[in-house]
Amino acid sequence: MRDCKMGSGKQKSSAKLVVVGSLALDSVETPFEKKRDMLGGSVSYACAAASFFVKTGMVAVAGQDFPARYTDLYRKFGIDCQGLSIIRGRTFRWSGVYEANMIDRRTLSTELNVFASFSPELPESYKSAPFVLLGNIAPGLQAHVLSQVKKPKFVLADTMDLWINTAKKSLMEVISRVNMLTLNDSEARLLTGEYNLRRCAARILDWGPQYVVVKKGEHGAILFSRKGIFIVPAYPVDEVCDPTGAGDSFAGGFMGSLAGASSVTERTVRAALLCGSVVASFNVEDFSLSGLAKISRGDLRKRLSSLKKMTSIE
Amino acid sequence: MRDCKMGSGKQKSSAKLVVVGSLALDSVETPFEKKRDMLGGSVSYACAAASFFVKTGMVAVAGQDFPARYTDLYRKFGIDCQGLSIIRGRTFRWSGVYEANMIDRRTLSTELNVFASFSPELPESYKSAPFVLLGNIAPGLQAHVLSQVKKPKFVLADTMDLWINTAKKSLMEVISRVNMLTLNDSEARLLTGEYNLRRCAARILDWGPQYVVVKKGEHGAILFSRKGIFIVPAYPVDEVCDPTGAGDSFAGGFMGSLAGASSVTERTVRAALLCGSVVASFNVEDFSLSGLAKISRGDLRKRLSSLKKMTSIE
Repeated sequence: MRDCKMGSGKQKSSAKLVVVGSLALDSVETPFEKKRDMLGGSVSYACAAASFFVKTGMVAVAGQDFPARYTDLYRKFGIDCQGLSIIRGRTFRWSGVYEANMIDRRTLSTELNVFASFSPELPESYKSAPFVLLGNIAPGLQAHVLSQVKKPKFVLADTMDLWINTAKKSLMEVISRVNMLTLNDSEARLLTGEYNLRRCAARILDWGPQYVVVKKGEHGAILFSRKGIFIVPAYPVDEVCDPTGAGDSFAGGFMGSLAGASSVTERTVRAALLCGSVVASFNVEDFSLSGLAKISRGDLRKRLSSLKKMTSIE
Repeated sequence: MRDCKMGSGKQKSSAKLVVVGSLALDSVETPFEKKRDMLGGSVSYACAAASFFVKTGMVAVAGQDFPARYTDLYRKFGIDCQGLSIIRGRTFRWSGVYEANMIDRRTLSTELNVFASFSPELPESYKSAPFVLLGNIAPGLQAHVLSQVKKPKFVLADTMDLWINTAKKSLMEVISRVNMLTLNDSEARLLTGEYNLRRCAARILDWGPQYVVVKKGEHGAILFSRKGIFIVPAYPVDEVCDPTGAGDSFAGGFMGSLAGASSVTERTVRAALLCGSVVASFNVEDFSLSGLAKISRGDLRKRLSSLKKMTSIE
């Protein structure tokens, strides 16, 4: 797997990638099943995805009710949990229901709980991590994490409509300081006021990032940079079980793979995006982290190779 | 342009590709402009697209009000118009309005006129054409065309929800006799009763065709065959002016390119689909056939080469 470097996932060395994000207990209803209090949140999906490739450190907060089996699961993935604070109170909870198309979803409830006062503080050993993934949380918190890392080599920020609507000023500040911004197509339109995605991306590139990735769910994603466009295909899975965390596992798989590459170039960024796409495709095949927990690096390699064949005319 | 063979378009020889479909005068309203009685219909778009690659014969009907400048335009494209009947009455008319997203559209009116009694009869010289494109018309008419061609090498049928809902039996009969079926994602779901596109395609492949192409508009298309999946990217254009005819020019560009290839193999089919995608991208950049009328084979080649770079990690 030349284009998708994977570490042993169990290195004793300090984290090469630091991920901050939400940690949640998710209750999800699909047209076929209903599940309660599953392990979720952007940080869980992104760290699990990245852990296939490099030593990944998590920055997150959970309440005292956070089940020990979930912390054990993080450790099984080889995630460095030094930055996970377990504090008094209840863990953040989210519940939602997916429409028949398994794409559109409605939030039923959000209980912030301990997440309401989250102030992400990095353990010493994380501060020199060269790769930083700012998962989808308030831009003010993303900025606070950024201010604690010394000279990161590559920073990705993910965002969403909520922050564009409620915290645009601090989001713009974060955007100006990162290497890559990821968001979905409707969010790219909302953020820039443009409709055409090429124009949206051109606008965002003007604000500072070298890369913009517009996520399109089952249709893949598009990378925009000053060097051109890369169309990232989605691996067509046989059955989508639960799309929750698809974007987070895509970002995590991407950052893990990039952090494992020898350098950051247009080529390694493109190759890492394919890895992210493949990791996300496994993620949606089961609930919570189960899709990722049951695969090996060999499974990732195999699917990556199939995906490449699906985009080649040879 | 090794993968996208183009003929001179002005050959005296008989048509290598025959296209049947609707011929219409379209009135289109987009959020930005309103145009009346433009040249349209599936046969116009598909023939113009195919004419970049091989001698293409049109089978269609128009009324006495059909403007001579439109027949002249067909000839400028090098289209063989022996199969175009101009009969007493008014030409088929369609009018529709596009939503702000330039994808969803509402039909305002349909006047069948001479198209109501269309019985496509092939000129002698068309009957031995090796490639046949059955554009989106009633499956009974598609079958009637098929019965007139001697031993075609490759037949593509396009269809739509209307025929799935109103003429499923004769559509199934056509499907069993063609090499490739093209339809969009919601139509694939409607036709098969499956939701997942891989399952939809597997079902259709069981009915006879070697290839199914599921069209996804701005997100490209997916080719399914027993040999695997090919993800066909859409070229991201700077501005969509009018999406009418995108699917028809995709099918036409594909069939023209395939008819110009030395043989029909998985590889030439994949390469031809990329050509179709590129032709369609020019088509949506202007109204009616104007997007195609103003480009050269060199423009097609250039954009094909860009599209390939957009899907390669190198």
